[in-house]
Amino acid sequence: MQFELTREFIDELKELIEAKNDVSAMTRIKDLHPADIAEIFNELDPDESAYLYNLLDSETSADVLAELTENEREQFIEEMPGEMIARKVIDNMESDDAADLLGELSEEKQEEVLHSIEDVEVAGDIVDLLSYDPDTAGGLMAKELIKVNENWDIAHCIRDIRKQASEVYEFYVVYVVDDDDILKGTVSLKKLLISRASTRIRNIANKDVILVKTDTPSEEVANIMKKYDLVSLPVVDAIGRLVGRITIDDIVDVIQEEAEKDYQLISGITEDVEHTDNIFVLTRARLPWLIIGLTGGILGSRVISMHESDLKISPEMALFFPLIGAMGGNVGVQSSSIVVQGIAAGTIDLQGIAGKLMKELSVALINGFILSALLFIYNLLFSESFALTVTVSIALFVVIIFASVFGTFVPLVLQRFKIDPALATGPFITTTNDIIGLSIYLAMGRLMYGLF
Amino acid sequence: MQFELTREFIDELKELIEAKNDVSAMTRIKDLHPADIAEIFNELDPDESAYLYNLLDSETSADVLAELTENEREQFIEEMPGEMIARKVIDNMESDDAADLLGELSEEKQEEVLHSIEDVEVAGDIVDLLSYDPDTAGGLMAKELIKVNENWDIAHCIRDIRKQASEVYEFYVVYVVDDDDILKGTVSLKKLLISRASTRIRNIANKDVILVKTDTPSEEVANIMKKYDLVSLPVVDAIGRLVGRITIDDIVDVIQEEAEKDYQLISGITEDVEHTDNIFVLTRARLPWLIIGLTGGILGSRVISMHESDLKISPEMALFFPLIGAMGGNVGVQSSSIVVQGIAAGTIDLQGIAGKLMKELSVALINGFILSALLFIYNLLFSESFALTVTVSIALFVVIIFASVFGTFVPLVLQRFKIDPALATGPFITTTNDIIGLSIYLAMGRLMYGLF
Repeated sequence: MQFELTREFIDELKELIEAKNDVSAMTRIKDLHPADIAEIFNELDPDESAYLYNLLDSETSADVLAELTENEREQFIEEMPGEMIARKVIDNMESDDAADLLGELSEEKQEEVLHSIEDVEVAGDIVDLLSYDPDTAGGLMAKELIKVNENWDIAHCIRDIRKQASEVYEFYVVYVVDDDDILKGTVSLKKLLISRASTRIRNIANKDVILVKTDTPSEEVANIMKKYDLVSLPVVDAIGRLVGRITIDDIVDVIQEEAEKDYQLISGITEDVEHTDNIFVLTRARLPWLIIGLTGGILGSRVISMHESDLKISPEMALFFPLIGAMGGNVGVQSSSIVVQGIAAGTIDLQGIAGKLMKELSVALINGFILSALLFIYNLLFSESFALTVTVSIALFVVIIFASVFGTFVPLVLQRFKIDPALATGPFITTTNDIIGLSIYLAMGRLMYGLF
Repeated sequence: MQFELTREFIDELKELIEAKNDVSAMTRIKDLHPADIAEIFNELDPDESAYLYNLLDSETSADVLAELTENEREQFIEEMPGEMIARKVIDNMESDDAADLLGELSEEKQEEVLHSIEDVEVAGDIVDLLSYDPDTAGGLMAKELIKVNENWDIAHCIRDIRKQASEVYEFYVVYVVDDDDILKGTVSLKKLLISRASTRIRNIANKDVILVKTDTPSEEVANIMKKYDLVSLPVVDAIGRLVGRITIDDIVDVIQEEAEKDYQLISGITEDVEHTDNIFVLTRARLPWLIIGLTGGILGSRVISMHESDLKISPEMALFFPLIGAMGGNVGVQSSSIVVQGIAAGTIDLQGIAGKLMKELSVALINGFILSALLFIYNLLFSESFALTVTVSIALFVVIIFASVFGTFVPLVLQRFKIDPALATGPFITTTNDIIGLSIYLAMGRLMYGLF
């Protein structure tokens, strides 16, 4: 059944490639799913996978290319002449994959490939798709779809669908259009199968069709398909003409990428990396945040040194520097991440900013009170300085309130200025909260040690 | 077109409900998609949504219930008698949704509902589904599916599908079984539509069918559907009999939940919360991590106080407490999160632990060197104490190496012991890294100040 990639399988394959035993190597992989072959390519050295790639038939090799990421794909098509890309790759791909692949090529190479595509209609579809922003419905959609005229009867439809189906890999819904190609509804294959042959399409079509425009952002497309549990979604142009369709498998990728992007931002990684990437890619992805963190730490040291004279009088304040810094950062990340998730789910617009801040403030008051009380009790029992006990508890309370409000506010403001709100969970806010927390603590210390 | 939920719409609806203007209220919502009605319910007060809910017809109200989360659903079914749940809700739901809903009821109520279901086959399907672990393929699947015998011809199939289709809401694939109900393959609706009526199913069936067993974990099911771009996936029992099917919309939810769970762990939130939850739920979700953070901060203060005599000699060391603590935490989270994402994507098994640690060590050496060098230059220029300059740079280097290795190691170990590796990105590791970082720094200080 499913293929399970093992170390042994890879080692065996490597040996067969080295021995140039093409027949045995192909026996191992030729019946596998393209997604499995793509996974195998990731485990081989570039030379080895290039060798295997050249043994694959055109259709399989095109499917495998579509499964690879942009970077992985590059090594296979970089050296291929444009004419070969057109014939061996593009001809065997759905229009959306073909457009994605072409979009990755240099302009020169793109033109070379486009001119080598024999079917002008195919080339035209790809040119159309290339004109859309990749992060919109237009950039996600494929041109291949099955459509029928609302005036046809089922028998006519099925005859026509048989013709159309040869060009479409798989379909789950038939779109219904009028004579001007304006989208009027959908008919499920189930309905087509179970209705009588003389039924007119307009009478069985579902007219409440959920659709998007070519310029609808990907994230919104994903939210719509998730919310309404759709398997495919039609895309129309500005006047409502059907121009393409998006399938759920493309949207699963969008959802996954969005989630990964947010996860990487919150974990302090600046670009899309995987544990399989090489050392330099991994280093480059991680260094920027660490440099911001380092800068924050240095600024923190400056804040402390500005209070050096206070610290000479009450050096025990240094004991709680790490606690105050860490708590400010923790609370800020919690607050930001809840807002970021709300924005991603599209559920945050309704409540005004004021309402959100009030709620966050209430949570902060409760948490701040509990945590400060716990710290107060600890210090009452174990600390010799009552001034320190009071200072650190009050400072913790203030820091929690501040970090909560700040952590909620920043992603909302970023969102308003059309900047990715997930940036708020990243380095800047944590570092800012660290420094401001320290300042609050030290200022509070000056005040309290004056009083007690 | 799509429904857009606005503040005005909700306010208007609230007024209509208050005026008990049932007809106008229903005109506003009756043509909406159940997912939209569920969204509206979330914006209304419990009394208001209960009022609207009772106005809905059985089918719509069942669909709306299926769209709500467990907590939201509770208020509607809590007070409903078992007989009414069976008739109004269960009868209008797919088996998987019905089983999910029943699984949320008390055992007593469950039995009451099951006995009230008139169709024994429906009740039997639900009882079957309830027996599976919710986090496995069995717990995700629905019983409704279309299957045909491999020996039938297409005409026979289509006649049979028409009969079966009345009980299945929507389907995209027809399953092919033998006389013993063993899954043999699939036939796409496209193939059924375009093939000749006398064709035997076994001749057009796709026999390379990707399937899962009832006990396959949800996460693996999600990875398989993602990898192979599947819209539906058959589930078989231990001897290969077809027992259910999982559709992509359920898997989109699994993917989303997994991503959200990992995101919440890394942001220090312990349970599934949304910004719309009430203040006490939000507080409860956030307090545990903050208490761990507080404990970590207190332990940090103890570590520092153990070195109090050193600090009397070199009080300037306190300047870099926040920097050392924060950097240890940052590097640790980066390392853990890369491993956690690799495990979630199912790509991490192939490489051994030793290989991963070596790679992580290399990244840490490069990052550690660059960051320590930057800090060294800064301190050379701005710090008066050469001993401090050397101490803090070396300590930073050691802390980065340690935190990287520790951050990589912990999720791998958790995974080996079948504990959720994402826990490693949570509070324990960050806090541990903070404390160990401080200890390294202070120990290094004792050593260096002795030398210079």
